[in-house]
Amino acid sequence: MRIVYGLTLLLLLFFKPLAQAQNGIVVFQSDFGLKDGAVSAMKGVALGVSPTLKLFDLTHEIPAYNIWEAAYRLYQTVTYYPKGTVFVSVCDPGVGTERHSVVLLTKSGHYIVTPDNGTLTLIAEQLGIQEIRQINEAINRRKNSNESYTFHGRDVYAYTAARLASHTITFQQVGPKLPNDVVRLPYQKAEYKDGIVKGTIPILDSQYGNVWSNIPKAMIEQLGVKPGATLHVQISQHGKSLYDKPVRWVNTFGEAAIGDDVAYINSLMDFSVAVNQGNFSEKYKVFSGSDWTIVVRK
Amino acid sequence: MRIVYGLTLLLLLFFKPLAQAQNGIVVFQSDFGLKDGAVSAMKGVALGVSPTLKLFDLTHEIPAYNIWEAAYRLYQTVTYYPKGTVFVSVCDPGVGTERHSVVLLTKSGHYIVTPDNGTLTLIAEQLGIQEIRQINEAINRRKNSNESYTFHGRDVYAYTAARLASHTITFQQVGPKLPNDVVRLPYQKAEYKDGIVKGTIPILDSQYGNVWSNIPKAMIEQLGVKPGATLHVQISQHGKSLYDKPVRWVNTFGEAAIGDDVAYINSLMDFSVAVNQGNFSEKYKVFSGSDWTIVVRK
Amino acid sequence: MRIVYGLTLLLLLFFKPLAQAQNGIVVFQSDFGLKDGAVSAMKGVALGVSPTLKLFDLTHEIPAYNIWEAAYRLYQTVTYYPKGTVFVSVCDPGVGTERHSVVLLTKSGHYIVTPDNGTLTLIAEQLGIQEIRQINEAINRRKNSNESYTFHGRDVYAYTAARLASHTITFQQVGPKLPNDVVRLPYQKAEYKDGIVKGTIPILDSQYGNVWSNIPKAMIEQLGVKPGATLHVQISQHGKSLYDKPVRWVNTFGEAAIGDDVAYINSLMDFSVAVNQGNFSEKYKVFSGSDWTIVVRK
Repeated sequence: MRIVYGLTLLLLLFFKPLAQAQNGIVVFQSDFGLKDGAVSAMKGVALGVSPTLKLFDLTHEIPAYNIWEAAYRLYQTVTYYPKGTVFVSVCDPGVGTERHSVVLLTKSGHYIVTPDNGTLTLIAEQLGIQEIRQINEAINRRKNSNESYTFHGRDVYAYTAARLASHTITFQQVGPKLPNDVVRLPYQKAEYKDGIVKGTIPILDSQYGNVWSNIPKAMIEQLGVKPGATLHVQISQHGKSLYDKPVRWVNTFGEAAIGDDVAYINSLMDFSVAVNQGNFSEKYKVFSGSDWTIVVRK
Repeated sequence: MRIVYGLTLLLLLFFKPLAQAQNGIVVFQSDFGLKDGAVSAMKGVALGVSPTLKLFDLTHEIPAYNIWEAAYRLYQTVTYYPKGTVFVSVCDPGVGTERHSVVLLTKSGHYIVTPDNGTLTLIAEQLGIQEIRQINEAINRRKNSNESYTFHGRDVYAYTAARLASHTITFQQVGPKLPNDVVRLPYQKAEYKDGIVKGTIPILDSQYGNVWSNIPKAMIEQLGVKPGATLHVQISQHGKSLYDKPVRWVNTFGEAAIGDDVAYINSLMDFSVAVNQGNFSEKYKVFSGSDWTIVVRK
Repeated sequence: MRIVYGLTLLLLLFFKPLAQAQNGIVVFQSDFGLKDGAVSAMKGVALGVSPTLKLFDLTHEIPAYNIWEAAYRLYQTVTYYPKGTVFVSVCDPGVGTERHSVVLLTKSGHYIVTPDNGTLTLIAEQLGIQEIRQINEAINRRKNSNESYTFHGRDVYAYTAARLASHTITFQQVGPKLPNDVVRLPYQKAEYKDGIVKGTIPILDSQYGNVWSNIPKAMIEQLGVKPGATLHVQISQHGKSLYDKPVRWVNTFGEAAIGDDVAYINSLMDFSVAVNQGNFSEKYKVFSGSDWTIVVRK
């Protein structure tokens, strides 16, 4: 008998690194806003599954139907949470249609519960796909909710996330395994060629009006420059130039005078431009989206 | 002696289903907004009563003094939380006047701590009144707060809710029992008559611009129709018609083209209209309130 | 041996009142807004330090770079949380410059983790300085974050607060002790002289448009008046009068007719003026800041 226990323990120790144990933390994201009861209803459903879950928010201010921004906010945030955290992202303009409802397990050990409608574009690239499963709604759907077609965030996603996070179900019990791929939104990747770096503006740091590119710091360094250097930055939309200036690359805003244009590496280690304590986006009418191009040279 | 214990245990087991045990969860709603420290101060007071409480939010973006919307948000949300959850709702234009401060226990086993100023109108109808008690402020008021007259949310409601949720006091210790009624805001109830259904627009789904009625799905079905049917929808304010069109009833937005008007059953199982991925409210200048009428026929 | 244990216990009991034990609660404030992942990333980092921490928010809607308002919101809120609570305040226009990153322990037993850039002005006056320590970033900085210069909120402040709140480090291990002073923003203190009380408008109660002064109730009482009295209130900006009227001092808004101007003592026990269920600030174009003066006489 003692030997059996010993063996079990050994097996548990051996297999632990393979499984990614959920940690009881659920983080919610949506385009619902905070003015009504929708976000709160999702949390109530989760607490009904298990009152010991720890519930947090990413953001609920994703602009309505903006799947790209939902994808970007996951890219910005997921990696800072402990492994085993379960994320719910509900930006779901096609609610009730044939898009798959899925749970993605990233190679980093994070779970994302979401409609597979492009929301997973960036996180799949950033963290890698360990496994994807389709939610089996015959099992993983709030009881007596079959008549409701328009709020899968509450009836399917929050419910399934809570069951997964609380170990009520295993990852396997989410539903059948899907091929290791996700629906991907097209976008201009950053590239270096002949002393010129080119990328797009995936998002604004809208609270401050800073402009974030998708060009990683390492690609800027391929230009043979380092902080303190002056870079030539050109920003255009559909080929129309809206900004074309030399800008100094600073480590911190404190190095520049108030009102100066500066280039810097943002908190995600991507190239960005700002007006120190001002609003670059408003000043130069520069916004974000796949139709924007940013070019950096020495 | 052992027999007495046995009997006590038996009695406890017997009476347990009658009492509605609080579950340590407190959910806050207010018209305070999130720009200052008011909501946070309420939570601090609750944690001072018991640091093990689990604190959540419904919404704090109730428009200032809009008791009707506070009532609607409770109707939209309470039922999704586990029994024994304690809600605090503070939309209190008459703070410090003679309106009663109460705790309502619904027949569904949820507690609502609030000024009885109309906030309980819909929840009392939806979930039924099990018992109402008036808060005895001689006991259930934050220490040293008697000089503060304008923030009962912090000094009385959050404090009492925390004491109740943490079993510091029993429901009976809230204060004296009141008659089983609440202050009710007048509104047009939905009605079916001679092949015509008539209701009002209690609220907008403002994040998306969808228009929610108070007409339940079952009443629409009395028209002898089902999803896929075309319904005639007329919306007017003070008798002035702002919308008068045939609209297709869909189960999910995915069934319609982008930009189409659609009728659907919302997440509360009430009849609603929307522009698919557009903003019905803005497009047709339709808003919410007791002066709005919505009429549906085959 | 038993004696040693006994002595240790005695010492622990003796010194317990001197140390202020952290209680596992962390409260976050920032000027980040809630539209992106920044606030959530801070919480993820904190949970990575210890998943048992209890995380709450003060506000994240501090206007960008507005250190004064960050200072005021701490003044408005900290005292309502239990002793041992750790606050993080990140309004940091000088991120990455030579301003000190500190943890303040107040005489009331609350911890504030923040750049020392004026954010501590009011809380230091209100609660007193027990001890200040500079954060030693060689130890108290998120691993692998040395290349990131622009998000100390996530990499230093949230991380240090979580380590302190979870007893991963002691207060002493935050870093070296600094002199008992903080960077202070200048502002007009309230004063009584010859039957006239004079102060400034530190903030608006913007949700309702009420105007809050920094004049405490006790100073108004020096005028020899009590609730029910009519006071003469004059409000000016840079010497230009925008309001000059007799106003009745009420205990509660319920005492006044809707639309009446009223004077009252706000929830922080400071003198304030409002339009009952209206918006004083909008009506009279009165705003907040150090250039505003409010004068009250009998």
